[in-house]
Amino acid sequence: MTTTATESGTNQLKIGDKVFNSRLIVGTGKYPSFEMNKQALELSGAEMITVAVRRIELDKTKESILNYIDPEKYQLLPNTAGCFNVKEAVMTCQLAREAGLGNFVKVEVIGDEKTLFPDNEATLEACKLLVKDGFTVLPYCMDDVVLCKKLEDAGCAAVMPLAAPIGSGLGIRNPYNVKLILEAVKVPVIIDAGVGTASDAGRAMELGVDGLLMNTAIAQAKDPLKMAKAMRLAVESGRLAFEAGRIPKKLYATASSPLDGMIDV
Amino acid sequence: MTTTATESGTNQLKIGDKVFNSRLIVGTGKYPSFEMNKQALELSGAEMITVAVRRIELDKTKESILNYIDPEKYQLLPNTAGCFNVKEAVMTCQLAREAGLGNFVKVEVIGDEKTLFPDNEATLEACKLLVKDGFTVLPYCMDDVVLCKKLEDAGCAAVMPLAAPIGSGLGIRNPYNVKLILEAVKVPVIIDAGVGTASDAGRAMELGVDGLLMNTAIAQAKDPLKMAKAMRLAVESGRLAFEAGRIPKKLYATASSPLDGMIDV
Amino acid sequence: MTTTATESGTNQLKIGDKVFNSRLIVGTGKYPSFEMNKQALELSGAEMITVAVRRIELDKTKESILNYIDPEKYQLLPNTAGCFNVKEAVMTCQLAREAGLGNFVKVEVIGDEKTLFPDNEATLEACKLLVKDGFTVLPYCMDDVVLCKKLEDAGCAAVMPLAAPIGSGLGIRNPYNVKLILEAVKVPVIIDAGVGTASDAGRAMELGVDGLLMNTAIAQAKDPLKMAKAMRLAVESGRLAFEAGRIPKKLYATASSPLDGMIDV
Amino acid sequence: MTTTATESGTNQLKIGDKVFNSRLIVGTGKYPSFEMNKQALELSGAEMITVAVRRIELDKTKESILNYIDPEKYQLLPNTAGCFNVKEAVMTCQLAREAGLGNFVKVEVIGDEKTLFPDNEATLEACKLLVKDGFTVLPYCMDDVVLCKKLEDAGCAAVMPLAAPIGSGLGIRNPYNVKLILEAVKVPVIIDAGVGTASDAGRAMELGVDGLLMNTAIAQAKDPLKMAKAMRLAVESGRLAFEAGRIPKKLYATASSPLDGMIDV
Repeated sequence: MTTTATESGTNQLKIGDKVFNSRLIVGTGKYPSFEMNKQALELSGAEMITVAVRRIELDKTKESILNYIDPEKYQLLPNTAGCFNVKEAVMTCQLAREAGLGNFVKVEVIGDEKTLFPDNEATLEACKLLVKDGFTVLPYCMDDVVLCKKLEDAGCAAVMPLAAPIGSGLGIRNPYNVKLILEAVKVPVIIDAGVGTASDAGRAMELGVDGLLMNTAIAQAKDPLKMAKAMRLAVESGRLAFEAGRIPKKLYATASSPLDGMIDV
Repeated sequence: MTTTATESGTNQLKIGDKVFNSRLIVGTGKYPSFEMNKQALELSGAEMITVAVRRIELDKTKESILNYIDPEKYQLLPNTAGCFNVKEAVMTCQLAREAGLGNFVKVEVIGDEKTLFPDNEATLEACKLLVKDGFTVLPYCMDDVVLCKKLEDAGCAAVMPLAAPIGSGLGIRNPYNVKLILEAVKVPVIIDAGVGTASDAGRAMELGVDGLLMNTAIAQAKDPLKMAKAMRLAVESGRLAFEAGRIPKKLYATASSPLDGMIDV
Repeated sequence: MTTTATESGTNQLKIGDKVFNSRLIVGTGKYPSFEMNKQALELSGAEMITVAVRRIELDKTKESILNYIDPEKYQLLPNTAGCFNVKEAVMTCQLAREAGLGNFVKVEVIGDEKTLFPDNEATLEACKLLVKDGFTVLPYCMDDVVLCKKLEDAGCAAVMPLAAPIGSGLGIRNPYNVKLILEAVKVPVIIDAGVGTASDAGRAMELGVDGLLMNTAIAQAKDPLKMAKAMRLAVESGRLAFEAGRIPKKLYATASSPLDGMIDV
Repeated sequence: MTTTATESGTNQLKIGDKVFNSRLIVGTGKYPSFEMNKQALELSGAEMITVAVRRIELDKTKESILNYIDPEKYQLLPNTAGCFNVKEAVMTCQLAREAGLGNFVKVEVIGDEKTLFPDNEATLEACKLLVKDGFTVLPYCMDDVVLCKKLEDAGCAAVMPLAAPIGSGLGIRNPYNVKLILEAVKVPVIIDAGVGTASDAGRAMELGVDGLLMNTAIAQAKDPLKMAKAMRLAVESGRLAFEAGRIPKKLYATASSPLDGMIDV
């Protein structure tokens, strides 16, 4: 979905029947403490927060990240991190719903333990089952245009191609693929995984993506709170720059033919 | 000058005896109108603004950009755009001072009409003369570590290496050179020329530079006002990310040896 | 499959039960003439040549590219270009075998008419059927490590991830993915599609891939014969450089810690 | 000097009054042994070889690299490595000539001990003196278009901009600058320093440069002899590809407007 630059409410991200005033989605893993996680969440400006159902404490009478997130203020996005097949992913989503975490889900079916790359075939199958079961489904997937179209056809509310391996910090490795996905699907395109620093986030937004999901880049920065703020500004800046319409790239100012600036790596 | 991340007042840029609360310096050329230029200046958050002495109307009783800039609010930075030798550059600075534009000057001695690349030898000579004449000198120069050290030794208050040709929008073409200059000089390093979009600005700041000067990227964007705001946020974001300390780059999250993330292109 | 640098016969590529003295595989489309195609094939040094079964004339009594390729000298690799589902791909391979083109096949199941990206799910299914039917199967596929492992498990004789869209000339867009695939599979990894010029081929070989398949970069160059020769030399050069072991990347010669040179983009 | 693609003798490089059948110039430092240096020289196909006058033994009755280089077969190119000012550089060239090493000289005046970047101002001055003194002067210099024009005007027989710091292996950090230099000067443009592996050499040649000078990339490779051969092939391949005229870059094959392929990084 290439959001046109002329619409109002440019920082509004619509997924399913909900509207968010931030295009940034953040995670809840790898923080030094729940308290710092909570502060980083606030500084990031995010309104949606993803939690790994299999890793968090679902019993709120115990110490749990869930006690630090106000469900009135934030949309929870339970995810299926750690699931390696369709059945696990589906059951994990159902468990989350039963635990009161709602029906938005981030579906990931991991296909490779080392790189945490998705098993796209299994992801697609899980998404089909979850859509039928009434979930609002956001799949973590390869930056593969054919796959993203299938996920959209399966009823997913968004597609979330990875920019680079989870936790790698490599940034948008293949902006060309992102561009092609934006041309091909109508649902929101949210970059999930791979962002390393704020300019990576800005650059992704400048490509025209609808949103960004990140965790490690904030949680594992030397100063997570400063980085949370940096990311908030970078996402807003990137969206504005996308809408503003950048100058073309040229070899020099008076060169007659501009280099194509949109999709150069 | 690599500003340490721990100092307070992280958005403060000190040049000569002045302190600025923004690390962004903007220009006054190529805008659709003086009025829009003024608005873009405000939205950018910049506190220093550069004007081409040979191109503007110095007589304020006539229509001039100078009538749109409040000298109480902004530091003027007269520049020598259009000068092709030492004498022209020196005289242009003196003319600016006599016209009441102050003693901060951006020195550019152009060596190639097509690309607008500087004549570094002549720039150095002009800087020496202007420093002796009491100016606070900020030279536009090649991203050349040896040259930048000479300019610092000559008493320049900052060095302003180009990131790419003026108006090219190519971004930071050689971050390695920028890194080497930051290691070599103590005066502020301000990237001058070449920025194309907001993430370019963010990335420059993440390298650790002290500031950015830009004109075309804002003035010639399809929506200059939106881009001015985007640039403001990108500069703040990039500075915060630099101070926050990004995660290392790795091939995948659990890879034992991180790629070096700081200076990868 | 990362071929070790120490083995002899470094230009030998083994696929299934055959050994080739060139690591380059070339195509037969888009040439100005069959005669030029033949000459380019010779100059490229390739010993395997791919033909689009659905596009060529299979009846050798008519004018056909097949009359220009000596089957004693070259291994034919019929491909399923133009097939959009499993059934078409499987039948096209069977048709090729019946027409005497042998049992090596390049399987492509296209999932997107515009970009010609593969439908990886369908490709995997087609490969399973073709392996069972006795073919030596080389699939064109996404640069997806999980998929490549599945294709290997399915009995494919090699995997052929794309470097960039067919005919795009963009080069190796994501060397990181190529690196991860090389770490994950034991069958030969052959880059298929995306090469634009000779240094792209050299760079792919330097990553350690076992071979390269290309067509447009040669056929549509201004001078296809010169480019065929350039590609031959680039593939040999890249292989030698991979085996020779390059110097590490450093910010400068005496820098104490090298940048990681292997997988920098 | 952009050599046109149509001229015959495409591997011929003309400098001053001499013609070379190889576009590669190699060095004589950092090899495990003189014997290996000699073999690498032969495998590289180079016809010009540079020697550091201040570091080698000029007395041939002693063990010296000069005893391993046949002056009938190779053009010696004495260089001024280790010189930090004009006087040292000029005297070193004169010493070389008196020692019988001829009147071709590579002039380097180092301005920064750490990075070995040149002092361009001093380099230019030294070149002027050496041209007057009858030398055929090839200066190592910054990739600065204005400087290169001055060096040409001073009578240098070629310009040798660095691609990256000496011994860094970073490759062509700023192909845009190389492109601009090629447009601006008529003398041969030879990339000196920075090449890390064979595809870097290929890529430089594809930009249209007239030749390449390298040392560390071969001498310090794990297998210098294999790398010497790889470099030979890469230079030939790159030149052929430049002359062949590559396909344009596009987002996908049927995209209507090609990306500009020539100078994309």
